[in-house]
Amino acid sequence: MLVLALPGGEQLAAGLASRLRCDCASLQLHQFPDGETGVRIDAPVKGRCVVLAGSLDQPDGKTLPLIFAADAARELGARQVGLVAPYLAYMRQDKRFKPGEAVTSRSYARLLSASLDFLVTVDPHLHRIHSLDEVYSIRTQVIPAAPLIARWLRSHVPAPWLIGPDQESEQWVSEVAGLAGAPWTVLAKTRRGDREVGVRLASRERWPERTPVLLDDIISTGQTMLAATRLLKKAGLGAPLCIGVHALFNAEAQRQLLEAGVTRVLTCDTITHPSNAIRMAPLLARAVRQLSAAGKDAKP
Amino acid sequence: MLVLALPGGEQLAAGLASRLRCDCASLQLHQFPDGETGVRIDAPVKGRCVVLAGSLDQPDGKTLPLIFAADAARELGARQVGLVAPYLAYMRQDKRFKPGEAVTSRSYARLLSASLDFLVTVDPHLHRIHSLDEVYSIRTQVIPAAPLIARWLRSHVPAPWLIGPDQESEQWVSEVAGLAGAPWTVLAKTRRGDREVGVRLASRERWPERTPVLLDDIISTGQTMLAATRLLKKAGLGAPLCIGVHALFNAEAQRQLLEAGVTRVLTCDTITHPSNAIRMAPLLARAVRQLSAAGKDAKP
Repeated sequence: MLVLALPGGEQLAAGLASRLRCDCASLQLHQFPDGETGVRIDAPVKGRCVVLAGSLDQPDGKTLPLIFAADAARELGARQVGLVAPYLAYMRQDKRFKPGEAVTSRSYARLLSASLDFLVTVDPHLHRIHSLDEVYSIRTQVIPAAPLIARWLRSHVPAPWLIGPDQESEQWVSEVAGLAGAPWTVLAKTRRGDREVGVRLASRERWPERTPVLLDDIISTGQTMLAATRLLKKAGLGAPLCIGVHALFNAEAQRQLLEAGVTRVLTCDTITHPSNAIRMAPLLARAVRQLSAAGKDAKP
Repeated sequence: MLVLALPGGEQLAAGLASRLRCDCASLQLHQFPDGETGVRIDAPVKGRCVVLAGSLDQPDGKTLPLIFAADAARELGARQVGLVAPYLAYMRQDKRFKPGEAVTSRSYARLLSASLDFLVTVDPHLHRIHSLDEVYSIRTQVIPAAPLIARWLRSHVPAPWLIGPDQESEQWVSEVAGLAGAPWTVLAKTRRGDREVGVRLASRERWPERTPVLLDDIISTGQTMLAATRLLKKAGLGAPLCIGVHALFNAEAQRQLLEAGVTRVLTCDTITHPSNAIRMAPLLARAVRQLSAAGKDAKP
């Protein structure tokens, strides 16, 4: 097996390779003057299972190199080509909200499925799509972050009260709460555009003696977390912890959250970020081992 | 028929639509905070031939929106989906120059072929690949710029001497020269990396009484043209005109060329640029009409 780091995926690739006891190399990229990308695999791939590793935040610039690398690996004799993308792109536009919109989830899944044999990711934003199999035609494995977050909570927060920032998060927050043995609630979200968000506390349940823990799968602009934090403060319910799976937010968003009274923002290391506190590599490596073995059976 | 402008393709789309006497709209793009692109077609496509229009310079950011738009058009009932990309990307890496390199020409052609019914382009950089059909599996039509450049020369330059900056350009320069009724020669190029280029005058033929016209398919950094200009100056052969098909160069490169003694830099309008002087729209529109008609026959 060979783990190949996509741009920004060097740390992830090294973590996977050490657990899989295999070689690791970085994909060599070269930008030509006209903006085309040259891609080179600087390691032998013939007869090996090649695992591309890297998150797909900011996906538009990363996707062609990924596909070029996968195609090259196959042409050069790789036995299988897989992708570990702890953050998977284009999972949110899973239907035509307005007439004429592209359903990018479907197109993107088709593109990746055409070049890969398997895919491992962490908590993709599944909403109307209930399983990756509905859009991906390759073997996939989804690593749930919930058990790891619940474990972190059990060992770090004596009496948490889990709060999901919107109804979409209900299933996910209730699962973490169940595993952590904690009460939970979800806020009602009123979105006005991408970056402006309002929330209200829908439930009458209050746990003033517990530590509020705001939970979301993606922390992007941080505005949802910010609105929730302000709401809790206004209601006299204490300073929350913020936990996200995927850290898409920048330093400014983090500063705003801390300034608004959040005691700590922490995330899983699906996207390399200063807030990373929960490591996914062990579970990702296990999934790679399983999926590559399944491929051996399928094509003996 | 509906012409849909890709980003930067607005002028091209308007020119095509007016010649094809059909509707024209711009693809609506939206950038989400995580870098994903939302794509919307703001015009009816059902039952129509949809022609996406835009050049593919700086391709990595343009290709996903293009594919998303093509897929959406098809899902929404477009009868055919074509692309007019006067500059086609990823034509230069058509073989593995170094071990492990991705042959991006092949992968890119596969990606576009999967989402489109036909493709129209101008002088793609065909070198080891002799026809687009070797890599594209869809109907394609290549518009040659040579006749238009030859026509421009006949009406603007009384006694031209055509000079190709390297051996690769021989076939192309000799064709323009034949059509323009002018002598020609090619320089020998010694490339050292992407941006540094040396040339020498291989032929003993000199035409000091004629206007030297440097011709290349792509003017990118301008370094090839610059080296050729300096060579001509040193040899006392006069100030050249520079003609390129595809204008990938920036204002700084243009300034350097004029400073080195080039009297004028002019290009075909395959990429919108201040140097554009030769209009391709009439031939592109004709090709679209032919290819879309061929599609009607194929799928009645």
